[in-house]
Amino acid sequence: MAAVASAPAKIILFGEHFVVYGEPAVVTAIDKRAHVSAELRKDRRIYIKSVDLGVSGFFVDEGFKAERGGPDARTKLEPTRIAVQKVLDISKKRVGINVEVHSSIPVASGLGSSAAVAAATAFAVSHVLGAKISREEIFHIAYEAERFVHGTPSGIDPTVSTYGGVILFRKDKGFSPIKVEGDIPLVVGDTGIERSTGEMVAGVRERKEHYASIINPLIKTGGKIALSAAEALEKGDLNTLGELMDINHSLLSAVGVSNEALERLVYVARKAGALGAKLTGAGGGGCMVALSPSNRLKRVAEAIERAGGKAFIARKSDEGVKIES
Amino acid sequence: MAAVASAPAKIILFGEHFVVYGEPAVVTAIDKRAHVSAELRKDRRIYIKSVDLGVSGFFVDEGFKAERGGPDARTKLEPTRIAVQKVLDISKKRVGINVEVHSSIPVASGLGSSAAVAAATAFAVSHVLGAKISREEIFHIAYEAERFVHGTPSGIDPTVSTYGGVILFRKDKGFSPIKVEGDIPLVVGDTGIERSTGEMVAGVRERKEHYASIINPLIKTGGKIALSAAEALEKGDLNTLGELMDINHSLLSAVGVSNEALERLVYVARKAGALGAKLTGAGGGGCMVALSPSNRLKRVAEAIERAGGKAFIARKSDEGVKIES
Repeated sequence: MAAVASAPAKIILFGEHFVVYGEPAVVTAIDKRAHVSAELRKDRRIYIKSVDLGVSGFFVDEGFKAERGGPDARTKLEPTRIAVQKVLDISKKRVGINVEVHSSIPVASGLGSSAAVAAATAFAVSHVLGAKISREEIFHIAYEAERFVHGTPSGIDPTVSTYGGVILFRKDKGFSPIKVEGDIPLVVGDTGIERSTGEMVAGVRERKEHYASIINPLIKTGGKIALSAAEALEKGDLNTLGELMDINHSLLSAVGVSNEALERLVYVARKAGALGAKLTGAGGGGCMVALSPSNRLKRVAEAIERAGGKAFIARKSDEGVKIES
Repeated sequence: MAAVASAPAKIILFGEHFVVYGEPAVVTAIDKRAHVSAELRKDRRIYIKSVDLGVSGFFVDEGFKAERGGPDARTKLEPTRIAVQKVLDISKKRVGINVEVHSSIPVASGLGSSAAVAAATAFAVSHVLGAKISREEIFHIAYEAERFVHGTPSGIDPTVSTYGGVILFRKDKGFSPIKVEGDIPLVVGDTGIERSTGEMVAGVRERKEHYASIINPLIKTGGKIALSAAEALEKGDLNTLGELMDINHSLLSAVGVSNEALERLVYVARKAGALGAKLTGAGGGGCMVALSPSNRLKRVAEAIERAGGKAFIARKSDEGVKIES
């Protein structure tokens, strides 16, 4: 019998980049989820199929045999394998597992797709094994899987995928949930421009080192914006939240991570009635996010599409990783 | 015999808006000038003709008779009349004057057109009267003429029109010249969007009051940018200057005075090879300015034109108000 688990994607609402320097970030889980089904095999192999990535293959010990997707298949499936293996290690089971991943989360867009897949995989596999696993263990497994993808991840993605909801995150200090009054209606717009997170982070560091007396106070102010935003979220004050997003976006522009395509989507979203808009994640391409009154979500999404972006409507989700069946 | 005087337009390179709150601004005179010729009349009337504004008319005591330009003529000519009258008052002459204004400075674009016209008028009229007038007196006359246009002007425009060069300006503390190593090659791009300076200033004040702990440090940082820019100018370090312009632009965006048209021109200028670009003046429309290597000035100007702006190349000018003939 198969077990199915799911885990949510995330959107950074405030504090990307500044979080690297110890400032708080505000992140929300959204209603885009990765679904993973797991079942026992009769042999000892681990078979993983990612429907959306179009890759599948068999892992046995150190070996890998691609079924679909060619030479890239292994790299793409490896984070999922890590999650499976960690659960097998914890539960001390020596069995084979079939894993199938279906995800509605756009990949490589800064939405935490890989952490969501890893968290859902860990939960589904533990369930099919009949093993008890804590959320903290799922978080750690997702974090390890993330390390394969990002080197030294902040921990934001596995935290949100595991626990869901809206969180205030601080590097080395962990996270605390923000109790949000009401909905957070969002439109995410993808520029379609790929960028390297590492290069964007390095660019900010360079500017910060070169113009320390100018950039340091901007980063500190980014932290204040995140704390003010957490308050506005608790009050359900979307107008303030939107304006804080606008200001935060300008500070991200000041540290050098915006670009023409992001500005275009940000401005068309505001013009279409968004309460605020900003780039989200690494910048230099990737995605922007607009906060919009519920009755204008469609209009904002259409405006983003007309301006050349790919848009989807997203809402805050309180559900972290969970068993579906 | 007629006397001809001219005075330069200005570009704010750093610190607009923040200057309202006591931070320093960096402003340069540019090689666009207003030319004013003055001659004595046989009667006691003051006749003023502005070739570029397409208005002219006669002032006698409290009365005005439009020659060209209809009911708006008086308002448009009034600052020039104030300048003429102040010189007559100072020199204690009771004569009539003909004044003709030719200006290559775009009007109502934040380039200080009215102050340049007033300064040149004051100098031309004093010359034709054979009256000695100090630069300080010219500054005060141009400031008074400005008051008619702007209510409570910062004093930047009459300062630059009178003295020329590059200046570090502080509210209530006056100005000091910046000794610039080499040229400052600029491209100015006009969005063609009219805006009210007063409304933009009021919008910043509102945001500052609502988000004091966030906006105040940004304004302070704007001041640091201006001081760093003054240093870079003294060293002739155009690369640093450009990067500081980019950061300054983002802070102006953070206080809410950028818009889509300005962002578009700023980004196309950077893409065309500018070292940095920012809005200049009140924002919300009006002009942007790009710093460009001399061999790319044309390319940057063309890119701005293609993106829908009106562009012209400008260079720093050391010449303040002067007698041409």
